[in-house]
This record gives sequence, structure tokens and C-alpha cells, in this order.
Amino acid sequence: MNHLLSVGDLGPDGIAEVLRLTDAFVEVSERAIPRVPALRGRTVATLFFEDSTRTRLSFETAAKRLSADTMTFAAGASSMNKGESLRDTAMTVEAMGVDAMVVRHRAAGAPWQVASWVDAAVINAGDGWHEHPTQALLDAYTIVQSRGSLDGCRVAIVGDVKHSRVARSDVLAFTALGAEVTLVAPATLLPPSLEGWPVQASHDLDAVLPKTDVVYLLRMQRERQREALLPSLREYTHHFGLTRRRADLLDTDALIMHPGPMNRGVEIAADVADLPNAVIVDQVRYGVAVRMAVLFQMLGSGDV
Amino acid sequence: MNHLLSVGDLGPDGIAEVLRLTDAFVEVSERAIPRVPALRGRTVATLFFEDSTRTRLSFETAAKRLSADTMTFAAGASSMNKGESLRDTAMTVEAMGVDAMVVRHRAAGAPWQVASWVDAAVINAGDGWHEHPTQALLDAYTIVQSRGSLDGCRVAIVGDVKHSRVARSDVLAFTALGAEVTLVAPATLLPPSLEGWPVQASHDLDAVLPKTDVVYLLRMQRERQREALLPSLREYTHHFGLTRRRADLLDTDALIMHPGPMNRGVEIAADVADLPNAVIVDQVRYGVAVRMAVLFQMLGSGDV
Amino acid sequence: MNHLLSVGDLGPDGIAEVLRLTDAFVEVSERAIPRVPALRGRTVATLFFEDSTRTRLSFETAAKRLSADTMTFAAGASSMNKGESLRDTAMTVEAMGVDAMVVRHRAAGAPWQVASWVDAAVINAGDGWHEHPTQALLDAYTIVQSRGSLDGCRVAIVGDVKHSRVARSDVLAFTALGAEVTLVAPATLLPPSLEGWPVQASHDLDAVLPKTDVVYLLRMQRERQREALLPSLREYTHHFGLTRRRADLLDTDALIMHPGPMNRGVEIAADVADLPNAVIVDQVRYGVAVRMAVLFQMLGSGDV
Repeated sequence: MNHLLSVGDLGPDGIAEVLRLTDAFVEVSERAIPRVPALRGRTVATLFFEDSTRTRLSFETAAKRLSADTMTFAAGASSMNKGESLRDTAMTVEAMGVDAMVVRHRAAGAPWQVASWVDAAVINAGDGWHEHPTQALLDAYTIVQSRGSLDGCRVAIVGDVKHSRVARSDVLAFTALGAEVTLVAPATLLPPSLEGWPVQASHDLDAVLPKTDVVYLLRMQRERQREALLPSLREYTHHFGLTRRRADLLDTDALIMHPGPMNRGVEIAADVADLPNAVIVDQVRYGVAVRMAVLFQMLGSGDV
Repeated sequence: MNHLLSVGDLGPDGIAEVLRLTDAFVEVSERAIPRVPALRGRTVATLFFEDSTRTRLSFETAAKRLSADTMTFAAGASSMNKGESLRDTAMTVEAMGVDAMVVRHRAAGAPWQVASWVDAAVINAGDGWHEHPTQALLDAYTIVQSRGSLDGCRVAIVGDVKHSRVARSDVLAFTALGAEVTLVAPATLLPPSLEGWPVQASHDLDAVLPKTDVVYLLRMQRERQREALLPSLREYTHHFGLTRRRADLLDTDALIMHPGPMNRGVEIAADVADLPNAVIVDQVRYGVAVRMAVLFQMLGSGDV
Repeated sequence: MNHLLSVGDLGPDGIAEVLRLTDAFVEVSERAIPRVPALRGRTVATLFFEDSTRTRLSFETAAKRLSADTMTFAAGASSMNKGESLRDTAMTVEAMGVDAMVVRHRAAGAPWQVASWVDAAVINAGDGWHEHPTQALLDAYTIVQSRGSLDGCRVAIVGDVKHSRVARSDVLAFTALGAEVTLVAPATLLPPSLEGWPVQASHDLDAVLPKTDVVYLLRMQRERQREALLPSLREYTHHFGLTRRRADLLDTDALIMHPGPMNRGVEIAADVADLPNAVIVDQVRYGVAVRMAVLFQMLGSGDV
């Protein structure tokens, strides 16, 4: 693995290998001193051209636990604002001695471009509406931890699928591992065509929930209302929010997931997010270990 | 000590114990390599929902000197701006593997809330107008270093007591150690009632200074003028600023203190801040050692 | 060397010594684990009162490779915004236990002031239009690596010399090492007088290029157009941009340099920046090693 741009590039075997390796790093994370020397002397840079403290800290924590150095390149205060091109920025960061770059960018495809310009390993940490592969890997890991496997698992992904890189990457990863995915959203928030996607679609959450093993709520961006894709947030919640009543339609061992940050009261009711089968905090916890596995695969050698 | 939320929770013995432990860390700070392995493998996160580079760097320096890892969660660029609740933010940070959280928030009580949600140790680094316990501990340490003890020490706290968490925590810590505290301020900048506070109040700084061992100037916020609590900053300085003339009313060995950042020329004259008995830079220096002591008490074990 | 404020203070021998030491740190940077313990226990603080992610990261990377701790004091979110003076900020940072301060400030002379207030070593990382000594050292190192020496080397510095601290420091360093420097700019972008500068001036880039060993393009600030110092950026490019046609006027082994960030298409044509004799990425790479040499000279002892 030279880069991690799309989770689709890994294939079922590649995904399974990351998940296996993640087991080892979950164990490391639980040690009194949660650190291994695997990447000593290596430098991992985060280049976030779009803010995300949560994802950035997860990657940086993963890098530090592998004993790598970290370099935070925050685009807000950077030379990009002085007219520098993405290419020159990437080449400048690399020239300071960077072994891996974790790139988030509002433009779909930006991490592919960066990968074509630099020798460093590139990880896509979210590009526009396109992909967010490590999110899909940590989501898959979380499901496998709770249910043993994704094979035959019925997953409903609910909400603004159209603008969601999480949904795109999750569909690729979950179906690669044998899950049956149903997208549940109003028509305005589904992609114009689902041709070629190995998924079903529905506008009726109440009908889907009883036949679901995992319900995955997407974050609702308040902008969608301004863009007239939604009549109102209240209307959205009425039809597609996981209210307490709807949560009761689920099997008792069905999982409730969310990539965060949550809008409690919009896509998920405040008390539903705290149910025992809501594994949202586990997603965050496993996220660090999954990112350790990915960084180790790219930059490490030998045993963990 | 699981958390440090109010300096009042420590009691006289608890405060004295932190100050004793601080001696050891002042000695560590003066070594050629000012670092001990006490917290190796532990992670200390700073969650500052209100800017304060100075306090954040002091805590992070303290954590690093104890060999802990640090995680900086700056609220400005964070998911709080995307509608996430304080609780979800705290639980997300904890899930990445954090042992202590240093929390600053504009709302009084926020650190108590965080402490009720997470298993990590929580340190209040300033909550609204309420408390700032490590500031009080470093202030107490600075006085004890110069004068041997706070017992019987006459301390005047001058300025905007009403809106000052520093004043609240200092009163608790200083009186717990036997000091006699006088608050000096215009009526508009004193709390509406002092009932239950073990302090005296005065509006006449000139009368108080000759009977004072420590004069503690509070930072004057320019907003107070807009809020009509002050006729003008000049008027404030005229009555309550520590001018050169007023500094001459002090005993020659009386201490001059300020929590920083100073408005030279407002609450303290430019040259008064540089007098030999002004220990403002010592407060900063001891602040790192006091925070090492607090972190060590919470997360460490065995000898320093 | 206690401070590095002006590159002129070093003199030819001092500059040569930094460049010699840089060789050792280029070698360190190429190791599998690019790190030496030289500054273990020391703390290097970056105080950037003007944004520059690129320069700050270069210094922080250099400090980390020497095993120093780093402290980032970003002025944007700091107490300077609360009315604190530069002096109090510097003394506060020093009191936390800092051995070297890397200062960038929009006011010429600010690093000299800081050096007069603190015991820590101070490095000027750019002060107004005045100086940027480590940029000049890395530029000199890059030229010497490619050409063996600066002695007799004909360097053209092209662009907004008047407002450029890079130009000022480069002239001092290059001429100290025996180069012949020609400044090429429209009259509005040259200093009012060149008296005492050991340089020639020209307004005719086409005439200068065939007699040049190194062409150094300065960054064109878009503000200059608003200030009416330029008719338009297009006009500037027409007369002073290094277009492909002009690049062909150079000797085949002449170097093309730029301090970054580049405005491709303005002062340098997009494809010219990628020519084999453009050493702009080398400048960044050597920058880290040069800054390691400077920090080592100030804070280190014994052999590398």
C-alpha cells in the first residue's frame, strides 16, 4: 500500500488485512504506555485545507503512538492564502522531510493530485463529497467487533447521502465485506443516479428499521435547508430522524452509529445517542487504532 | 485528588501539599534537562473554549516536563462550531485516549459538567467569572516563596473583583492559608454581596496600601467601560491604578502581583511593574511547576 | 553567537562556518532516523506575530531533529490581542522556560528589542521589510551546493526589492561571500537610494539575464498594485516576470531561485519553476538543515 485514496482500492482482502492489524493496535492502545517504536524517525504531516479538529487529532494521536513525529499544516494560516498552489504547498511540506501526508480538502480528487506530485505516502482524510476511507475502515471495524462480521449484515445509511463522503466510502467497504446496504433519504438527498451502486434505496425509514442490523445516521448539514433541499430541519427529523419511537423498531442488538459530530435532536434524538447499542464513542476509540494500522502498513516494516 | 475544579475543595492541607510538591518541580525545572519520566504514556488534553495561549502553554509545558503527551483541542476550529454539544466533544476527546483534560470555558460550572461525563481527570483552567484554581495555587506559592508563609499576611486584591475568577480562587486559597484579604474596588466592580466571604472591602486604595503585605492587581477589561461600570479607564487609574506615587505607600518589602496579561498604564503603572518587589514574572515561572505538581498528584504514582 | 538578528553580524567567516556546519545536518536529515540528541532538554519557542506556516514549520522541524522541545506561540490567538506589550509577552514566554525564541514581526527591529529584554537566544525570522537572516543563509547554502562557491558569482535579484527583507539579507550574505549582485526592478520597487549597498541596479531584465549565474525572483505582493506602485500585475510580468522566453536567455547551468510562496504566472512562469535548474524545492530542504546549524551554534556544545 503506497497511498490510501479510496477504500475501494483495498479490495475485500486489503480491508480485512487492515482490520486484522487493527486488533494489534487496539491492544497497544490499552497498555499502560500505549506506544510502540514502529515509526521512530518518520514524520507524518496533516494537511487539512478544511477544518476538522477531530479527524486531525485522531491521525496525530495514531502517529504519536507509533513514535512518529507529527507536523500540523493548518491551511487557514498558510501560504495557500497567499496564492500558492496546492502542488507547491505539497512539495514544500515534503521538502521539509515528510514521509506521509494526511490530506483533507474540499475538492474531490485533491488527494489523488497530491499523490501524483510527491514521493510521500498520501492518505485521503476526506475530499469533498467523494471519499473518507479511514472513516469507512473504522466503521467496518466497529461493526465487526460487535457482530463478528459484516457478511450478510443489513446496514441502513440514513440521511444526506448525496453530499456525504462517509456514505460513499462506507458503501464501498461494507459491500466489499458482504453487507447489504440500504440508503434511506428524501429524494433530494440521494445521488441523481444509483446505477452501479450495489445498494437499495428507500424513502421509508419506518419500513426499513425492523429489517436492519446497523443503522448509520449521517450528519445533517444545516446548509441543506438554505439550499431548499429540505423544507425544514424539523420536517427532516419528522421523517428521517432516529427518534426514540423509531429506535424501538430496531432489534434489541441492532447497532446505532454516527460519524460525528452529532446534531442531537436533528438526525438522532438526544437520548437515542446514549442507548447501550449506540456505539458512537467506540467508533472514535477504534478510529485511532485503525489509523495506526494504516500508517503502519504504509511506513512500517516487520512485526508490530 | 481526582479532579481540580475549585481550589476550595483542597482545603488548607491539600493546598499545602500541592505547594510542598511544587518545590520538587521547581528544582526539576532548573535542571539542565528539565524533565522527569513520571507521566510517560499518559496524555493530557487542553480543551480551551476560550482563548488563552499563556495558560494553555503553561499546562502543556508542565505536561511535557513530566513526559506526558499533549493534545491541543482548540475550540475555535472545532466541531463545537458545527453544533456539537460540550458533552459529545468531551466524550470524543476522551475516546481518543486522554488521561486528563484541562478545561477553560466561558460558562461557570462547565468543568464540573465535563467531570461528570468523563472518566479522565479534569482540571478547571478558568470557568467564566467563577474559579481558576491553578492560578490561586501559583499565586499562593509565589507569596510563600517570598515571605515564608501566608499566615497573617495582609493581601489587597484590587480591581474588577466582580468579574474575576482569579479573585474568587485567590480569596479561597489565601484565606485557607491564614491570610487577611481586603478587596479594593469601586462599588460597581464588587460582587453585589460579600456575605459569607471571609474578606473586608474598601473603596480607598491609598488607605489600604500602607497596611498591606501583598497588593494583587486584577486585569481591567476594557469592556467594563462600555458596560458603564466605569466612567472611563483614566478615572479608574486615577482612583485604583497602582501608580508610582501609590507604590511608594507600600512597605519596601511588600509584593506587587498581577495574573497577566497586564495593561501597563491602566491598573498598574509601566514602571511599577518593573520594581524589584514586583514578582509578576515569578508567578509565570512558578506556574509551570505548580501545574506539574497538580498533574503529578492526579496521574502520577510513587515519588517524583 | 548569542543571537542571530542580522546576517551582516556574522561576517564572511561566520557565514562560512554556518554553511560548513549545515553539511553535517544535511547528512543527519538523510538518515533513516533524522535526529540527534544535541539539544535534548532545551526548548525553542516560535513567536510569530505575522503568519508564516512554512517558516515556522521549518524552524520547528529543525528544533525537533535536534531533540529540542518546541513551543508555538501564535500571536493571532494570544494576549497581544488583549493589549499586552511585546516586552511582557516575551518575558512571559521566557519565564515558562525557553532557551531560544524565533521571532517574526511586522515591525523592523522587533527582534532586536526582544533580544534586549530576554536572556534567551533570539533568532530573527523576518522583521518587516528589514531582514530575514536564515533565508539568506539557506539561499547561500543552496547556491554553494550547486556551484561550489559564491565567489565571483553573478546574482540578479528581481522584483520588489524595496519591500523585501529577503533581498536585504541576501545582498548582505551573497556579497560577503564575494558575489556580484544586480537588483532588477521598476524604479518604484527599488529603495529610494542604493548608496552604500554593494550592488548594481537595472531596469532591463533581458539585458541582465545573459550575464547572470543565479536569477532570484522575489515574491510579488498583490498589494503593490493597489498602492499604485505597479500599473498592473500583467504589466509587471511583461517586463520583469521570468517567462519561458526569458529563461532561455540564461546560461544552461544558471540557477533559478525563489523564496516561496510562488505566484506562478506572475513573477515566474508556471513551467519555468519546474525546469531542472530551478532549485526552489532544494531551498526548502536545505532550510531545515541551515536552521539546525543555527540552533546548534546558539544552544549546543561539543560536536554535532
